[in-house]
Amino acid sequence: MKGFVVWITGLPGSGKRALARALAQQLQQRGRQVEVIDSGALRDTPLASSLGFSREERVQNCLRHAFAAKLLANNGVVAIVSAVSPYRETRDTIRSQVGAFAEVAVTTPKETCIDRDTRGVWAAALRGEIRNFTGVDDPYEAPLSPEFAIDLSHLDEHSAARALTAELSRLELLTGATAPGLDNDPLARELEDAGFMS
Amino acid sequence: MKGFVVWITGLPGSGKRALARALAQQLQQRGRQVEVIDSGALRDTPLASSLGFSREERVQNCLRHAFAAKLLANNGVVAIVSAVSPYRETRDTIRSQVGAFAEVAVTTPKETCIDRDTRGVWAAALRGEIRNFTGVDDPYEAPLSPEFAIDLSHLDEHSAARALTAELSRLELLTGATAPGLDNDPLARELEDAGFMS
Repeated sequence: MKGFVVWITGLPGSGKRALARALAQQLQQRGRQVEVIDSGALRDTPLASSLGFSREERVQNCLRHAFAAKLLANNGVVAIVSAVSPYRETRDTIRSQVGAFAEVAVTTPKETCIDRDTRGVWAAALRGEIRNFTGVDDPYEAPLSPEFAIDLSHLDEHSAARALTAELSRLELLTGATAPGLDNDPLARELEDAGFMS
Repeated sequence: MKGFVVWITGLPGSGKRALARALAQQLQQRGRQVEVIDSGALRDTPLASSLGFSREERVQNCLRHAFAAKLLANNGVVAIVSAVSPYRETRDTIRSQVGAFAEVAVTTPKETCIDRDTRGVWAAALRGEIRNFTGVDDPYEAPLSPEFAIDLSHLDEHSAARALTAELSRLELLTGATAPGLDNDPLARELEDAGFMS
């Protein structure tokens, strides 16, 4: 089966991670090999531990997620990335690199995210205790034409994941029949070039 | 089938990459999903592009390779890492993190690597034009008890890969029956913890 990448973007606290996990569960039940790449969790790993929250570092962070996700997708895995990934240009770059890619916009409004704020991060950011916080003092650029958009204000993540699974089917990503772009791509060729040191 | 990580370490120019590719070919012929993570090639990707060749950066580089390899192995893929990976402590850390892990020492002597020097990097390092070069002004700490050790001075990579494949079979990594450590590990648990920003 062909792998692909589901890239879930949205404001902090919008429900991305819950959706990612619910989707993973449903795709696993369909017999797919699935990996969730959760941006928050990755912050403590070698993949991202040295990165801060400047624009450049956020872009770099997203590109590393994408690199790992693409490696997985190239090996038949469905890689579900859950990441604020606030910048449109970066997401578009990743789309072009990955090929078999579905961008999912979690559109839960900012006010709802602030109201929920289960971790108190919005409150801290609004008090100025956290800087470069997306939605407060760092911009969030919503997708213009995502494959799927969903507001998780009133919808539970399992229903949302069912709708998303249906859309992935419709896009023929789940059939493995038409997943584009993974066989002949520039990144794979780039990886053929080699240096000597490590 | 259970994935695992084959970690190929050795001096620059010792033949790691050729062995990695030959092994990948043979395992693919056995129906395995295989990914080669070639350290030299990764230097131009988001995974490693910001890293130099200080001790700390080399360690970080290896840990990132290991992170990607483990992600793949957790999803049933055989991840073959080809990296100088000069420091014993780092390789041992990675071994303990990965679980299903085979360390392969390419023991081609330094003199042979210098004689071959197909890319001229040894000559440049010996002239002092490349700094922090493993084997010249940066140490190489050979494995003390690798799963497999091979000198590629006089043996071609395909014969070496056949011998290595036999050893992986003997270690029961290829059967998928006893690959240890991938189900209940600290890193997986660590990834369960989540933050909010990305």
